[in-house]
Amino acid sequence: MNEQQKQRIKARLPHGFRDRDEADIAAERRMLDTIRRVYESYGFSALETPAFEYTDALGKFLPDSDRPNEGVFSLKDEDGQWLSLRYDLTAPLARYVAENFQNLPKPFRRYQLGQVWRNEKPGPGRYREFTQFDADTVGSASPAADAELLMMFADSLEALGLKRGEYLIKVNSRKVLNGVLEAANIDPSKRGTVLRAIDKVDRLGVEGVRALLGKERRDESGDVTRGAELNPEQTARVLKFIMTPPQPAIGDGLFKWWNDVAPEQAAGSIGYIGVQELSEIVATLERTGYLGRVQLDSSIIRGLDYYTGAVFEAQLTFPVRNEDGDTVVFGSVGGGGRYDNLIERFGGRSIPASGFSLGVSRLFSVLKARAGAAAFAVEPLIVVMVLDKAEIAESFRLAQELRTAGFRAEAYVGEAGMKAQLKYADKRNAAIAVIEGSDERARGEVTLKDLALGAELAKSMESRAAWVKDRPAQTSVKRAELVQAVRAMLGERGG
Amino acid sequence: MNEQQKQRIKARLPHGFRDRDEADIAAERRMLDTIRRVYESYGFSALETPAFEYTDALGKFLPDSDRPNEGVFSLKDEDGQWLSLRYDLTAPLARYVAENFQNLPKPFRRYQLGQVWRNEKPGPGRYREFTQFDADTVGSASPAADAELLMMFADSLEALGLKRGEYLIKVNSRKVLNGVLEAANIDPSKRGTVLRAIDKVDRLGVEGVRALLGKERRDESGDVTRGAELNPEQTARVLKFIMTPPQPAIGDGLFKWWNDVAPEQAAGSIGYIGVQELSEIVATLERTGYLGRVQLDSSIIRGLDYYTGAVFEAQLTFPVRNEDGDTVVFGSVGGGGRYDNLIERFGGRSIPASGFSLGVSRLFSVLKARAGAAAFAVEPLIVVMVLDKAEIAESFRLAQELRTAGFRAEAYVGEAGMKAQLKYADKRNAAIAVIEGSDERARGEVTLKDLALGAELAKSMESRAAWVKDRPAQTSVKRAELVQAVRAMLGERGG
Repeated sequence: MNEQQKQRIKARLPHGFRDRDEADIAAERRMLDTIRRVYESYGFSALETPAFEYTDALGKFLPDSDRPNEGVFSLKDEDGQWLSLRYDLTAPLARYVAENFQNLPKPFRRYQLGQVWRNEKPGPGRYREFTQFDADTVGSASPAADAELLMMFADSLEALGLKRGEYLIKVNSRKVLNGVLEAANIDPSKRGTVLRAIDKVDRLGVEGVRALLGKERRDESGDVTRGAELNPEQTARVLKFIMTPPQPAIGDGLFKWWNDVAPEQAAGSIGYIGVQELSEIVATLERTGYLGRVQLDSSIIRGLDYYTGAVFEAQLTFPVRNEDGDTVVFGSVGGGGRYDNLIERFGGRSIPASGFSLGVSRLFSVLKARAGAAAFAVEPLIVVMVLDKAEIAESFRLAQELRTAGFRAEAYVGEAGMKAQLKYADKRNAAIAVIEGSDERARGEVTLKDLALGAELAKSMESRAAWVKDRPAQTSVKRAELVQAVRAMLGERGG
Repeated sequence: MNEQQKQRIKARLPHGFRDRDEADIAAERRMLDTIRRVYESYGFSALETPAFEYTDALGKFLPDSDRPNEGVFSLKDEDGQWLSLRYDLTAPLARYVAENFQNLPKPFRRYQLGQVWRNEKPGPGRYREFTQFDADTVGSASPAADAELLMMFADSLEALGLKRGEYLIKVNSRKVLNGVLEAANIDPSKRGTVLRAIDKVDRLGVEGVRALLGKERRDESGDVTRGAELNPEQTARVLKFIMTPPQPAIGDGLFKWWNDVAPEQAAGSIGYIGVQELSEIVATLERTGYLGRVQLDSSIIRGLDYYTGAVFEAQLTFPVRNEDGDTVVFGSVGGGGRYDNLIERFGGRSIPASGFSLGVSRLFSVLKARAGAAAFAVEPLIVVMVLDKAEIAESFRLAQELRTAGFRAEAYVGEAGMKAQLKYADKRNAAIAVIEGSDERARGEVTLKDLALGAELAKSMESRAAWVKDRPAQTSVKRAELVQAVRAMLGERGG
């Protein structure tokens, strides 16, 4: 590379990716640790799979099935096989289970936390690399396994500080939905279009869905989306199904509701089996005290093709202020469902499975917006100033002493003078600067500067008098009392 | 995809990658948390950068410079730009600093933990995806910044339970080395070959290095490696340098040593500057109590091309049994050095930097081999058996109660009978099985089965009598005393 080319390299983050800094990383780690503790307390086991899978083993299960070859990052390995970066954590789990089935406990309940990659057009808040946190139960067709996932997810949200009523976990069943489509004699080829239409009820309302079930929908700008072309009777059946709450969900209420929305689907039919499963889930949730937090909602669809039974979606119900300052209800922070046929593509053995996937960044944004920056502060930092570079070992020893006492402390290792060092401490949001000049050292003293207080003073001239009266921004203490004095100063600022 | 194709998909882990299970994940997380706490206590800030970088921004700094286009996973983005998965965490840091320099505190001290990918031929214990844990100080040319990294790394190893004497951090300087090559009139074009020869002294001994510095080296199999073709005098100079310990390192000992190995390199020359820097590092380490744990060693090279000053290598000195049952000394678990010119390729501004990178899997293997499996056990698991599937909500409530009391507990959510459930609990290495039959429920009792004890009994018939006498493998307790009884049983097995 010659000099001219060298000059041309521009430092730039790749399109659709992001860097993340200290405050976000620390806060998100706390959030993930909390969820992990709940998952582990339920006996789920950690699993890690690699970033890459063979492209054929990964399969193509992204919602956007119109572009089957896109959506993933792929490259050819040296032996000619195609590798893809995982786009979710479910496909690698299916590969893992198929490969290791003999040696796994059954059912196999695992959680996995990891990055996934989507080779899609990025947008605001929409990245091509993001984190998922999944929990799945493989090898049990029992509705109890679904109920357990729902309970565990509710427990996780509450462990994160959400109150009952601030979240709602909604449950539906693909079997029930298919039963309705069957009862209404809707051609299976229209299934995908019908599902996508129902999925938009939150955004477009009933009339929007009605249009999409019929011939077409024209939006405000005049753009036309083709509909499923159901006849009016079929459309009415579907709308009745999604608009009639399956209530009461306990006792025989669910079966009465079903007899109302799809009387053709009696015992033994796909829809009726779905209702039986939902009924078992509901009974378990009721007896364990989770019903209410978890509710049936027949408009819940979930985008993925591979679901075969119960589907779940967790929604937050409280408004938060987003990054643009607008107040919004965030909606879905995770979901999942039962996918009993996904693993059999690896050789025919049918292995039932069900899972719940959490959208980490979405949930983190909400918690951050709600709690405010303060709740996510990193540990207070103490910076030891270095007045005499030849004596930096002394400053290192001061910092060491503070670390041994449990504080986060550093000596300034740059090459600049006092003014730049204070600017550095300020940029680091340091709580305290420790200064030990040669005169002070001779006297056996150090100076502590309360930087948080300094910032307060600079902000508000009015409160200055009160602040200064109660606690000085700078104080000299005996070298031997350093730790004590730092503890006191941090205590005063509520650290 | 038709039925025949479906059958052909084989579940297989991609070549050179690995899955990791519960025990390893939990133990490695504990190790990484410990290191993270030390790094944070020193005031280093967390940073996360994406898996991908633009290929030109990433640069090509892998040791194997003979294959400049290999070693990385690359693919073309939709806009025609080449993306590569990061092969280390230093190149992304350089990009990040160059892009955000104005807004960063200076010096900028960050740690980063993350996966890196190498598109290389895998081997035993050598994967194409692995974890690195780096700490770097950017924006300070001061030897104090190097000393701080060395102190912090020593603290990390001790926080992990290593004793003094069980590890050694070795320091050398590329400037000093270059000074010797200059003093010996060695052509700069031979520099790479000479460095690679020195780097092999541990493995080949002095005579091996002598051969590689001269015409060629013939190994036991008869294979010939071409040497650097130095003349005998030059070879002697280089060997004297690497074999003469820079002792005593404190006071003027280092300068006397230098005057012996390279008298031509006086004040102002590159080698002398290197000696001055090492001398400052040593003085700081001495005064902070780290000298001895950190030592000078003039045979330390580090593979990467971009180092410009001090280079570091951490070595473990105790023998461990490896996975094949052989006793080995593990050697290097991390290293790094000063790279003052790496960031300027993004536009000319020279920004000094120094860093230390930890090889996570290597260190983890050693700790695991040393501590044995027991030290890395996951939390004991309690499995509640489900005798009556219709009553699973009762079992869920038992498990819930145990979780609320702080235990890791689950109810069996599979569909099999009692025998399979006990087999499941065994496979999960569960500590206790809780059984509540309908008779017991009527009496208000539950049965606890000590599975660890059961395993002991099965192993040793001899100790059976003693075991059974002291503590029964199965016991009935009042339903209300469940938590207490579980605590007692776990206590007995030392859990």
